[in-house]
Amino acid sequence: MPVRRLDSGTVRSGMDTVAVEEPLEIRVGTVGTSDESIAPLAVTMRTPGHDFELTMGFVVTEGIATDAAAIHSVAYCGLPPDEQEYNVVVVRLRGTVDLDRHRRNVYTTSSCGVCGKASIEAVEVACPHPPRLGTVDTAVVTGLPDQLRGRQRLFDETGGVHAAGLSSVSGELAVVREDVGRHNAVDKVVGWAAMHGRLPLDDTLLVVSGRASFEIVQKAAVAGIGMIVAVSAPSSLAVSAADRLGVTLVAFTREGRATVYTHPDRVAHNGNGNGNG
Amino acid sequence: MPVRRLDSGTVRSGMDTVAVEEPLEIRVGTVGTSDESIAPLAVTMRTPGHDFELTMGFVVTEGIATDAAAIHSVAYCGLPPDEQEYNVVVVRLRGTVDLDRHRRNVYTTSSCGVCGKASIEAVEVACPHPPRLGTVDTAVVTGLPDQLRGRQRLFDETGGVHAAGLSSVSGELAVVREDVGRHNAVDKVVGWAAMHGRLPLDDTLLVVSGRASFEIVQKAAVAGIGMIVAVSAPSSLAVSAADRLGVTLVAFTREGRATVYTHPDRVAHNGNGNGNG
Repeated sequence: MPVRRLDSGTVRSGMDTVAVEEPLEIRVGTVGTSDESIAPLAVTMRTPGHDFELTMGFVVTEGIATDAAAIHSVAYCGLPPDEQEYNVVVVRLRGTVDLDRHRRNVYTTSSCGVCGKASIEAVEVACPHPPRLGTVDTAVVTGLPDQLRGRQRLFDETGGVHAAGLSSVSGELAVVREDVGRHNAVDKVVGWAAMHGRLPLDDTLLVVSGRASFEIVQKAAVAGIGMIVAVSAPSSLAVSAADRLGVTLVAFTREGRATVYTHPDRVAHNGNGNGNG
Repeated sequence: MPVRRLDSGTVRSGMDTVAVEEPLEIRVGTVGTSDESIAPLAVTMRTPGHDFELTMGFVVTEGIATDAAAIHSVAYCGLPPDEQEYNVVVVRLRGTVDLDRHRRNVYTTSSCGVCGKASIEAVEVACPHPPRLGTVDTAVVTGLPDQLRGRQRLFDETGGVHAAGLSSVSGELAVVREDVGRHNAVDKVVGWAAMHGRLPLDDTLLVVSGRASFEIVQKAAVAGIGMIVAVSAPSSLAVSAADRLGVTLVAFTREGRATVYTHPDRVAHNGNGNGNG
């Protein structure tokens, strides 16, 4: 798109590429029950692409589906090709899923007498399985951001998207996804794992290009991820959640350095400074 | 808090300060009507502090209150000092506010037949007044991020928070707020303006420490802000929204340079390269 560039007081015309951001509405219904209704679940601003991964990751990490087997199907809304809505995705869950429990969290109206517990506690999602991950070499940990950066194609073009990747203990990145929303990038890699039958994510590290928030720690823990490596800072709630959920939280991972905030015993120096080969 | 630091393969113990992140539940009710119920509106992860500003900014920029006069009161939930809940805020709106309209957006269940329009369009908030802002000197624009940075106290300590500030046309920052969530930082400065009777924000620029997303553009436009100066990248939807809503969007504002994406006529070079004094 056409832009004007300011530089030391001068103004000139030029062209620029920006990251695409569009709303995605996720709707949810069940199969195998008498309730055929489909309810809007959430609208998220996302970078189009890998929408089904994003949707699967979202319903898993928000605790709506306990695992990939609970997801019957994911599809764009409407009938192809004429009336398909590429910004509306419908996910159908198997009848065993307790959708009412989630609905209640969203729909409850309460008076002020029962002060707030229900809604704030609804922010926390139960983790179905504790993370399983052995020790990881310090060189693998500190090398992950550069690996992630090397696969951020959208960032190269626009400078405006976050990235998340899943790594093995030896530092191989299985998948990298980008999005204008960093939670979406995490949902996309978890959704990729769900699609490939890889949940829970035993022996897996999550590397993220930005900060480590509570929600990212929770999403990782629900998916069974044992270590998060973030390029930027963590928040206090991210640290306390990682501590409680058994996740090793590493942040400020830059230029061969990093800070380990929780469960540091999983990070070990193997003696030759190179565990990445 | 105690941490371990990795550096070139070595591991040593140390101490670190992290940005505080806690959930804030915003509940809403009305006064002057027969409906005395109070409904949960949203839970946001925020850095504690300026919670009432955050709440006022949220209800204004989400279009729940059309202006500050529609807000009757903001208070923590419960009775002080014993049962006060500092993570739950109740905002009471005057009876003229059409709370049902907002409720419907959140609570509607629809079948897939009426495909998605309602929920996705509900993302857009009506802007009550077009932004009013004259021309701003290029040196004022490019100088704002450094000014903002100079007042980011939490960032200095933690490296993990976003900031937003309101500036005059000549580059004076009236207020700066920080938060782990960049939307919260914007809500806090708009809430500050609401508390000080400054809405709509004529002749005002918004400067933000991070990226420019759709939601930040929309929040600014609802508050009447005519120009957004972002340090990092914009998204495509941010650019299209700024274009449609009459907001000048400036991004990648670093080291004397910047890129103007929309309504560039408000940015002008005054000839001496210094409009900041």
